[in-house]
Amino acid sequence: MASKFLRSFFVVIFSWVFVDFSAAIDDTSLFKYVSEMGNCSDDMLNLDSLRKSLVREEDTIIFSLIERAKYPVNSPLYDERPGFSGSLFEFFVKESEAVQAKAGRYLSVKENAFFPDNLPPSLLPPRGSQQVLNPRGASININEQILNMYYKNLLPLITSDGDDGNYAITADRDLDFLQALSRRIHLGKFVAEIKFRESPQDYTRAILAQDKDSLMKLLTFESVEEMIKKRVEKKAMVFGQDVDLNENDNVGNYKVNPSVVSRLYGEWVIPLTKFVEVEYLLCRLD
Amino acid sequence: MASKFLRSFFVVIFSWVFVDFSAAIDDTSLFKYVSEMGNCSDDMLNLDSLRKSLVREEDTIIFSLIERAKYPVNSPLYDERPGFSGSLFEFFVKESEAVQAKAGRYLSVKENAFFPDNLPPSLLPPRGSQQVLNPRGASININEQILNMYYKNLLPLITSDGDDGNYAITADRDLDFLQALSRRIHLGKFVAEIKFRESPQDYTRAILAQDKDSLMKLLTFESVEEMIKKRVEKKAMVFGQDVDLNENDNVGNYKVNPSVVSRLYGEWVIPLTKFVEVEYLLCRLD
Repeated sequence: MASKFLRSFFVVIFSWVFVDFSAAIDDTSLFKYVSEMGNCSDDMLNLDSLRKSLVREEDTIIFSLIERAKYPVNSPLYDERPGFSGSLFEFFVKESEAVQAKAGRYLSVKENAFFPDNLPPSLLPPRGSQQVLNPRGASININEQILNMYYKNLLPLITSDGDDGNYAITADRDLDFLQALSRRIHLGKFVAEIKFRESPQDYTRAILAQDKDSLMKLLTFESVEEMIKKRVEKKAMVFGQDVDLNENDNVGNYKVNPSVVSRLYGEWVIPLTKFVEVEYLLCRLD
Repeated sequence: MASKFLRSFFVVIFSWVFVDFSAAIDDTSLFKYVSEMGNCSDDMLNLDSLRKSLVREEDTIIFSLIERAKYPVNSPLYDERPGFSGSLFEFFVKESEAVQAKAGRYLSVKENAFFPDNLPPSLLPPRGSQQVLNPRGASININEQILNMYYKNLLPLITSDGDDGNYAITADRDLDFLQALSRRIHLGKFVAEIKFRESPQDYTRAILAQDKDSLMKLLTFESVEEMIKKRVEKKAMVFGQDVDLNENDNVGNYKVNPSVVSRLYGEWVIPLTKFVEVEYLLCRLD
């Protein structure tokens, strides 16, 4: 009875802390955290701003998913094309990332390119100190996995069949969503760093043993994951509804199936974030 | 009494038709309309798909406005910079539009570049027949006005003061919103073409006299404009709210002030769309 109470108590406290960790890693707070403070203690303890930030990141992912679902699958965009190195989509992403690299996007430690090879240098000077992550861990980039998941699993779930010829806009919507998703998943590096700093003893033991299973156990809190899945499903219902001036808006008519958004988090966003966390921790003591 | 009844009846019918005209002009229906049919009769009469499309365009504009408001004003992005032709923002937009031009974005008659000079050619072949607009009218581009309105009027209303250094992402959010806004406003060319085909007599008289005021009167239905302003304000409330798992979500706490979205439509989107409509009609008989 008492242990049951203690377990629930721990889960509640953890949920609250976990939310704030993830929340700590949105653009604004991370930038402050990285370039102004050079360490992650103070900003991470601003629980209110952190909670707001997590909620905000989910909105960005859901908005951009809804915007991509506006267009049919437009599969010729993803087919190999003569005259392009690969598909029109790959061409578009490589060229867009080159522009964004020049404008300094990848000066931020939380931005990871999908095609990082041969990116042009930034035309802006580097930002302030970003020495908050283990250098090896900071370079983890699983965008290739994210891209494969997107083509293979997600795109068929959110798009209708067909080809409306709007390839450039479709590729633009794809990239918008993929960048938001990649940012969210790679923030696992910061979540891991923060969790390590919280209880170095527990993590050091598993890291020295290179014990992935123990690390995954330390990082997994099912009740928190369930809460996140419920919240994003609710957001998909709110943001994906058809709003009109009648009080009884078109209830149940959503632009993206809310259960797909819950599945996106349950099957891909949360597991891939934890994968990044484990990979980061494995080299945390190097 | 009878005339009053007739006026209200007319307004109701017009609202319904007007909504469908604007609605006719989203990506999908326009693409069908332009490349498959080569004339605008049938698709425009598909009132249901047209209404859906208008509602959808508004969502895109509001989502992208909320996403830009996520970042502070970041004014250094818009300042003249040594090493750039103008500001970092201008550099980013010109380079991004060049990439999108190569991917065929401007093959679509409803896409207008912000910096149309010296865009590279599309790597994709042209789409099907797009001979639905008067050629001179089709080339109308008021993006310079839209850009000035954005810098001068809108940006201060939706952003907080400050500089978080996230210039590349901020410019990306700016461009995303501006492209959606530009699309919506330049669709006035199609609205005008359709209205002209509806009642050529009334419009021909005013066009031959090059009478802008009469054209503006013919195009203005205040009750419809009020309805649109109310709808987008409601959407800003729904899409801009903080959603959490408590039933009593953070009511009244919006990411963009809904009255600013209503103002965006009332002061800029609707007047600029009508400006495009009038400019189009003035050369409709050339």
